[in-house]
Amino acid sequence: MERGRLEAFSDGVIAIAITVMVLELRPPHGANWHDLNLFWPELGTYALSFVFLAIYWNNHHHMFQAVDRVDGSVLWSNMHLLFWLSLSPFVTAWLGQSHLEGLPVAGYGFVLFGAAIAYQVLTLRLLRINGQGSRFSKALGSDLKGKLSVLAYLLGICLAFVAPIVSVAMYVAVALWWLVPDVRFERALRGQEDA
Amino acid sequence: MERGRLEAFSDGVIAIAITVMVLELRPPHGANWHDLNLFWPELGTYALSFVFLAIYWNNHHHMFQAVDRVDGSVLWSNMHLLFWLSLSPFVTAWLGQSHLEGLPVAGYGFVLFGAAIAYQVLTLRLLRINGQGSRFSKALGSDLKGKLSVLAYLLGICLAFVAPIVSVAMYVAVALWWLVPDVRFERALRGQEDA
Amino acid sequence: MERGRLEAFSDGVIAIAITVMVLELRPPHGANWHDLNLFWPELGTYALSFVFLAIYWNNHHHMFQAVDRVDGSVLWSNMHLLFWLSLSPFVTAWLGQSHLEGLPVAGYGFVLFGAAIAYQVLTLRLLRINGQGSRFSKALGSDLKGKLSVLAYLLGICLAFVAPIVSVAMYVAVALWWLVPDVRFERALRGQEDA
Amino acid sequence: MERGRLEAFSDGVIAIAITVMVLELRPPHGANWHDLNLFWPELGTYALSFVFLAIYWNNHHHMFQAVDRVDGSVLWSNMHLLFWLSLSPFVTAWLGQSHLEGLPVAGYGFVLFGAAIAYQVLTLRLLRINGQGSRFSKALGSDLKGKLSVLAYLLGICLAFVAPIVSVAMYVAVALWWLVPDVRFERALRGQEDA
Repeated sequence: MERGRLEAFSDGVIAIAITVMVLELRPPHGANWHDLNLFWPELGTYALSFVFLAIYWNNHHHMFQAVDRVDGSVLWSNMHLLFWLSLSPFVTAWLGQSHLEGLPVAGYGFVLFGAAIAYQVLTLRLLRINGQGSRFSKALGSDLKGKLSVLAYLLGICLAFVAPIVSVAMYVAVALWWLVPDVRFERALRGQEDA
Repeated sequence: MERGRLEAFSDGVIAIAITVMVLELRPPHGANWHDLNLFWPELGTYALSFVFLAIYWNNHHHMFQAVDRVDGSVLWSNMHLLFWLSLSPFVTAWLGQSHLEGLPVAGYGFVLFGAAIAYQVLTLRLLRINGQGSRFSKALGSDLKGKLSVLAYLLGICLAFVAPIVSVAMYVAVALWWLVPDVRFERALRGQEDA
Repeated sequence: MERGRLEAFSDGVIAIAITVMVLELRPPHGANWHDLNLFWPELGTYALSFVFLAIYWNNHHHMFQAVDRVDGSVLWSNMHLLFWLSLSPFVTAWLGQSHLEGLPVAGYGFVLFGAAIAYQVLTLRLLRINGQGSRFSKALGSDLKGKLSVLAYLLGICLAFVAPIVSVAMYVAVALWWLVPDVRFERALRGQEDA
Repeated sequence: MERGRLEAFSDGVIAIAITVMVLELRPPHGANWHDLNLFWPELGTYALSFVFLAIYWNNHHHMFQAVDRVDGSVLWSNMHLLFWLSLSPFVTAWLGQSHLEGLPVAGYGFVLFGAAIAYQVLTLRLLRINGQGSRFSKALGSDLKGKLSVLAYLLGICLAFVAPIVSVAMYVAVALWWLVPDVRFERALRGQEDA
């Protein structure tokens, strides 16, 4: 089965999720600085979600470059990932309009957690299909970063009801950590070209 | 005529329908558990519609892999299918915001029914063009599952005014049944590669 | 210059315009038949706009199959067409929520008129670039249908303030007339393959 | 790394941003000419933003045709550009609904400024990767137009609080200036074909 249409569909869903989020950003009612001040939390949450979706797109892009084969189970694992990513605009709007209360902060973390788990499952399916000694397997390595992110989101959800500001700080920290692009696949692919 | 642009356009419409549905999910007004409780029916309907659209994309993807030729009538049959799928966000919002009343439940079923009929029509057009002995024809088989789904939706529409909960249960059951991916085309294509 | 990315971008814009229109369809407030009755004009306008956009996509698809070369002026002519098509969701919502009053009916016709003119301009640019004796030129022919449609929209705009129902009937008639796909390019391309 | 998926994703985001802006255009409440009059500023702002996004797409398209290589830093520079472009619908709605007040006019200019800077950064990254003597480097030239645009936006932001109408006039002037497509890359590529 070709991976082209799976990539195109994923690109579509992520591109839409990343863009329609802006529709939830309501323009300030007035036009003075005070009205704008009320609006920073919404813009900040938007930027954070944009970065998360951009990270997923980047990693998805890098990962599938090393993939030789996909099958029905990969299509569904990928759909599962897209389901969580498609909820981003919703939790972004909820968090942006709240005042760092426990439930929206936990909800935001829960969607991040769901997406991270879905990404792990997708990775495992791809490992299964492409085989242990494959180009994909070598490029993936131990994926410690992915596993630690799952833990960080889980911790963020728990802390949301105690110290929501700490949870949000953790989400931001994970995002910044991932901003360093996932060079594993790039390196592995380049190494292969050199060999 | 090439099938590439038809696939790309269909991917676009389905990706948008599956993603913009989330814009109809209004964040809970408050931030306590009670506010969230009111929100489960909306999220549940969203998830159900996501699964239905994902099923259509998966089956569309599998089916067109076995298609060698398309023509103007296929373009229009496909547009007809996309019309019904594009109504998903509308009935999803209506059903999610109602309390399992007859009319929204029937309306949701009607869109599923319309999409299923449109898919059958598209299949018939493709059969006509690709021929009885074609790769496509062999992969399609009798398509009993597709025909039974149409019946299930029809039954769901009728029951909506008597026992709406049963209708919704039927929609969910059909979705779960289809979650098992349409392996016919995959198997047929693989068989061909082996031969 | 390759035509691939122009086609992909146009597909994107049309796919989005055709899909996000549904977001303007507000679910009926209640759940009884009376609430639904108020909703038919909106659904009807949605279906009409869907058909118009589908016609544009189909014709765009057919036309560009016969195109060998594009340049900067084609990119901009195409953008001009997409501008008018992107206004569809707006006039669709306006017409659907009004009660066949003059101004919304004329506004709807004006967007159809703008799109039709933009399509003519795009056609002329493509003629210029591909040359009089080109495959494209032969496939296009006299394009009487396109020119008559422009006249029909113009008449519809004028009549909107006198007899809006007649204007809408004319828009529907033009849509039905175009539903017969633009077989010229298909025929011309097939003829070439046979030769 | 292939540039195909980066182009496809960028096309997706720009196509969505250019199209969903129309969702912020609320249909006039009434159906007489007076209601329509209140609506021209919104439509004008929409048209201006459409032109800006179309310019970015066109230039992006032309530029990447001359690009031979991309890497992780290009992906992120491109994402940074898309972030600013994705804010277009927001500032468009804000400016369209205000009455040329200082803050929305400055906000609109700020997003234009951010996008222009991001485009410059993307250009520099591409220069670095493709090398000084590359096809890309020759096609780019001194890029005086890009640098002057950044200055114009900066001036527009400052003037917004003094004479907002002048700021808007400057934004329109820059847009008109860019409407002349970026023929550098086209010329350079054609020259190469001739050589």
